Amino acid sequence: MAEVKATNVHWHEGDISRNDRWKALNACGATLWFTGLSGSGKSTIASALEQALVNQGINCYRLDGDNVRHGLNKNLGFSADDRAENIRRIGEVAKLFNDAGVLALTSFISPYRADRDQCRELHDSAGMTFIEVFVDTPLEVCEQRDPKGLYKKARAGEIKGFTGIDDPYEAPNKPELVLKTAEHSVDDCVKQCIELLAEAGVLKKA
Amino acid sequence: MAEVKATNVHWHEGDISRNDRWKALNACGATLWFTGLSGSGKSTIASALEQALVNQGINCYRLDGDNVRHGLNKNLGFSADDRAENIRRIGEVAKLFNDAGVLALTSFISPYRADRDQCRELHDSAGMTFIEVFVDTPLEVCEQRDPKGLYKKARAGEIKGFTGIDDPYEAPNKPELVLKTAEHSVDDCVKQCIELLAEAGVLKKA
Repeated sequence: MAEVKATNVHWHEGDISRNDRWKALNACGATLWFTGLSGSGKSTIASALEQALVNQGINCYRLDGDNVRHGLNKNLGFSADDRAENIRRIGEVAKLFNDAGVLALTSFISPYRADRDQCRELHDSAGMTFIEVFVDTPLEVCEQRDPKGLYKKARAGEIKGFTGIDDPYEAPNKPELVLKTAEHSVDDCVKQCIELLAEAGVLKKA
Repeated sequence: MAEVKATNVHWHEGDISRNDRWKALNACGATLWFTGLSGSGKSTIASALEQALVNQGINCYRLDGDNVRHGLNKNLGFSADDRAENIRRIGEVAKLFNDAGVLALTSFISPYRADRDQCRELHDSAGMTFIEVFVDTPLEVCEQRDPKGLYKKARAGEIKGFTGIDDPYEAPNKPELVLKTAEHSVDDCVKQCIELLAEAGVLKKA
């Protein structure tokens, strides 16, 4: 638990700048936007990366279906409009974390290029780092893994509009990173993310 | 900027627990929910508290009209439903920051008791700390300050449904803290917040 000196109240009129905040916290915000098919490994890699960084004292936080779909976005369904609004809100929340000096890791299929590009634009226009990570796992591999049994249901027609089956996945044109989970281990993928964060100036390599 | 060892990838299957995260980051999440009339001093105090804590290396982050109303909640208006949804989303985002180990300071009029209580319940049910801070400044004082000229417009009938004029403000029944800004300085109010955070076990006093 952080220690605080109650007597030590230093502030000036107006808000603290992002720069001063990050400097004081020894932090640097960024958004790592993981996109890929269901079962591609987005959450596994994001979770491993989150742990690896947090264990080194770096605050990064994962936004995923568990903490967003059941909370902030619980009033959204799966219509085209709702899907777009789902991604828009996630982009806005990632931007807030980013501003706070927390590395936001978003882990959503986010199949449409236009929605992802909107989130990128949102970050760009605020001078924030947006890194698109394409978790490029072949459909056959994802379908074979089928960790939640969703592909089976989609093939049986029990789920409609499932990405990769009867709804398109639009791969990024220029992602900052492509992770081939069918060929590389989770450890390798995490290291690739960390290397990229260092190259992007988000983290400093020891 | 935080240093990272790319070779130092430690993780286990599954997600990092809130407890392990907070321990590794030497952090402790909580939500300080500032509520009060327009011009009561919510944002001034929240901003000063944010600076005082960040300058001591404690990550806390202010959610306010500037970064929420123009971003995440820009598709909401001022109807009863939209006002409720506005506060609901802010509560959900505060909870995410909280979970990440960041002290969330929310600074919104949030005039309705039911909306604030829903945010409290959201935190309670997740085992998170929710501290309601009633910035209790008399209407006459707020109206005299009128930093944005809004009371003048409301009195002239140019703004409808303005809290305190032609829309009610429901004061908290049992706020954790009451700040009397007409009687105490900003410094004093910030110190009271820090004392309370220490008493609540969110911060450890040096």
